[in-house]
Amino acid sequence: MAGERGVAILVGAGDAIGAAVARRFAKGGYTVCICRRDAAKSQGLVEELTAAGYRIHAFSIDARQEADVQKLFSDVESNIGPIEVCLFNAGSNVNKPLVETTQKLFFKAWELACYAGFLVGREATRVMLPRGRGTIFFTGATASIRGGPGFAAFSSAKFGLRAVAQAMARELGPKNIHVVHLIIDAGVDSEAIHQRMKAAKGIEPSEIPPDSLTKTSSIAEAYWFTHQQSRDGWTHELDLRPSVETW
Amino acid sequence: MAGERGVAILVGAGDAIGAAVARRFAKGGYTVCICRRDAAKSQGLVEELTAAGYRIHAFSIDARQEADVQKLFSDVESNIGPIEVCLFNAGSNVNKPLVETTQKLFFKAWELACYAGFLVGREATRVMLPRGRGTIFFTGATASIRGGPGFAAFSSAKFGLRAVAQAMARELGPKNIHVVHLIIDAGVDSEAIHQRMKAAKGIEPSEIPPDSLTKTSSIAEAYWFTHQQSRDGWTHELDLRPSVETW
Amino acid sequence: MAGERGVAILVGAGDAIGAAVARRFAKGGYTVCICRRDAAKSQGLVEELTAAGYRIHAFSIDARQEADVQKLFSDVESNIGPIEVCLFNAGSNVNKPLVETTQKLFFKAWELACYAGFLVGREATRVMLPRGRGTIFFTGATASIRGGPGFAAFSSAKFGLRAVAQAMARELGPKNIHVVHLIIDAGVDSEAIHQRMKAAKGIEPSEIPPDSLTKTSSIAEAYWFTHQQSRDGWTHELDLRPSVETW
Amino acid sequence: MAGERGVAILVGAGDAIGAAVARRFAKGGYTVCICRRDAAKSQGLVEELTAAGYRIHAFSIDARQEADVQKLFSDVESNIGPIEVCLFNAGSNVNKPLVETTQKLFFKAWELACYAGFLVGREATRVMLPRGRGTIFFTGATASIRGGPGFAAFSSAKFGLRAVAQAMARELGPKNIHVVHLIIDAGVDSEAIHQRMKAAKGIEPSEIPPDSLTKTSSIAEAYWFTHQQSRDGWTHELDLRPSVETW
Repeated sequence: MAGERGVAILVGAGDAIGAAVARRFAKGGYTVCICRRDAAKSQGLVEELTAAGYRIHAFSIDARQEADVQKLFSDVESNIGPIEVCLFNAGSNVNKPLVETTQKLFFKAWELACYAGFLVGREATRVMLPRGRGTIFFTGATASIRGGPGFAAFSSAKFGLRAVAQAMARELGPKNIHVVHLIIDAGVDSEAIHQRMKAAKGIEPSEIPPDSLTKTSSIAEAYWFTHQQSRDGWTHELDLRPSVETW
Repeated sequence: MAGERGVAILVGAGDAIGAAVARRFAKGGYTVCICRRDAAKSQGLVEELTAAGYRIHAFSIDARQEADVQKLFSDVESNIGPIEVCLFNAGSNVNKPLVETTQKLFFKAWELACYAGFLVGREATRVMLPRGRGTIFFTGATASIRGGPGFAAFSSAKFGLRAVAQAMARELGPKNIHVVHLIIDAGVDSEAIHQRMKAAKGIEPSEIPPDSLTKTSSIAEAYWFTHQQSRDGWTHELDLRPSVETW
Repeated sequence: MAGERGVAILVGAGDAIGAAVARRFAKGGYTVCICRRDAAKSQGLVEELTAAGYRIHAFSIDARQEADVQKLFSDVESNIGPIEVCLFNAGSNVNKPLVETTQKLFFKAWELACYAGFLVGREATRVMLPRGRGTIFFTGATASIRGGPGFAAFSSAKFGLRAVAQAMARELGPKNIHVVHLIIDAGVDSEAIHQRMKAAKGIEPSEIPPDSLTKTSSIAEAYWFTHQQSRDGWTHELDLRPSVETW
Repeated sequence: MAGERGVAILVGAGDAIGAAVARRFAKGGYTVCICRRDAAKSQGLVEELTAAGYRIHAFSIDARQEADVQKLFSDVESNIGPIEVCLFNAGSNVNKPLVETTQKLFFKAWELACYAGFLVGREATRVMLPRGRGTIFFTGATASIRGGPGFAAFSSAKFGLRAVAQAMARELGPKNIHVVHLIIDAGVDSEAIHQRMKAAKGIEPSEIPPDSLTKTSSIAEAYWFTHQQSRDGWTHELDLRPSVETW
């Protein structure tokens, strides 16, 4: 029976990375709470995993609202079970010349990719600290370590999230909370990127070279691996990219 | 006579780094516009530099307000002269355990140290781009490159500012705008730190080992140096610390 | 039956990390070739793994001698099987004030930790390239990314090895050879460190706080994980340290 | 009169960076000792600076030979004056596929760019420590921080040199010896690069876009700036590249 290891809460979890991590941690024995703006969009995943005998719940959440995040964590702890694993995966890539970067765009990039990550990380910490254990994941990107032209807004948010992860890792490690920042230095194999590649360059999904985009299942395995590490040897940051990627 | 080289606008410029950069660029021939929350606090500096024959103007500005920043740049360009140099120096160090870091604290740290920096950098770019030249400085700190325990809020803001500087440097370099991120990996020799050291550890200013805090004039010289670099060899990031610092 | 997945060759493989990686890859189906200065010292491990039904061979090798390294790879390929995995793990920590660092010490630190790594990595590449697959591991340390006081010799060698790993990863990734640099930012739980802690500080092994040293089995799992990654998502660098470590 | 500030010794100093640093430090009041394999090649520079009233001496040195380096420093100290400034500038860029990188090439790249740097840095330290002051410069490159395809040998050497500089900076700072690592992330405007560009791409020197190569005088100014820094604010690493460079 699934779920006996507690709850894995995944915030900013869509059909790509979120769904893959949900599958991996469900398979690993966790009850999964998958949280995104519109829970209805996770209906297919809920049915898939439920049919497979796993425990999964979908929540609608705006992770940029402190009260909503607090209520989410409180509800899950009260009604579902102890949160042992937390993933923060929100963030939306944008590229604009600096002078066309509106204050709204800059704010929104930060609010979603960084501020919400802080809120989620802090609330996860609040429920994990008393139990003295837990794992918290943050999804990073190339923009987490490189500020490229046109990326003032997005890089600023992703650099900021990486700092949150680092500060948490150093503060919470001694309290047995494992914080991991995964840098996905690649395109992620997803419906969204397929559409963008078709729109931008007329490339059909079937024409994309195999293994040139990182599969969401590979990302989920990386998270699963770090979660399994014993306390004497924790990884706090690792990169992930296709073998053919230049970097 | 001073001022013939155009305007150096210094935002978030207080009595420490701000005043030192003001002196250096005034001496270097720039009309200085020194901008902080309360211009009255710069009165002494204005009198000092004016008496020495330099041109200096003080402005009250809340650099977190887009309209105010835009009005400031517009007013200076209209009434004083072309902005050739811009320093963004705001930011306020905070250290709190993660679970005591309120959303307000996290937001305010970012708003002041990162968001305001984006606004200032973008407005500076807007006036510099048509002239095809300019220098933009961002003041960084240890927290810009290391997320230490208790520094989730401040490091996140400073990492984010560094990303803004990097993205701007890469985008604007080819357009002859020189963006510099200076990492001050040290305590800055200032009234504020003297007071903190006395309050925290009972150390009198006279007891502080010489050269163990970085002098604001040394910081100003570093900015001046990078500003003087010719276009074939620009520095985009440099560190600064006392010889006795461990790092 | 063990060994059907080919050969894992471990160079600079002693009783700590080397033995743990040997156990992990033997268990994973590889025939293990464990290589160190004096193969006799691996006799216990050979007996252990052989008794458990695994395939293991011990070799004496001075990895700083090009001809010896070439002969080793040639012999293993001819007599044992195709090399699918290669670990380079040699290197000997030294700390000396700069002016007491003899040219011999500097040379020897480099020769063992860096030059031998280049030789081993290149020979592994030579046998892997024609088959179009393989995994090559390099063991890094704190000194790989930080040049601390007294570490001119050791850091120089470890920085140099990291460069070899990076250059190889970028060159060989597109050819389906996966190069991994693992930064062990910690003390490794081993007989050697126990002896040093007792000698230096009188600390008995039983007094060492649990999980404060990284277990060799945790290191072996990290290597195993990266080896298992599919080609669309490779990790090239990751850190490893106890949860209680400050960094 | 020149030379009253002591000696600046420049090792691995050719007609490009070496000559520019010689001019800058001669102008700054130092007696310059310019050292390369064949001192005869510096004859023109010696005549130029001597005619201008500066003090300059040329030495033939193989900086990879410990005894020669020691004799050089001893001779200069005995016969010319106290060494206050030392530049190590040797190193020769090479790019080869890994499997074509001979052990000889790997060794020679390291011997020249890293090992010689250690020898020179150590001997400079030995004469500076008793006087409690001095500045030591190391010239870095893109390859100092990035291991690109084909650069296993050169990057390994340059990473290694950077480690030497870092370890020295941390150890010697408190003893008032300022160690600077300058990363020239660019092509250097020199006869050598002009020849390579013509040979490789048929580009005439007159066709090279202005400011697309870093002038040696700009490099010399960067060294001069850091040398002038007061002890409370030292720069240990800075980058330098043309405004048009992508990075």
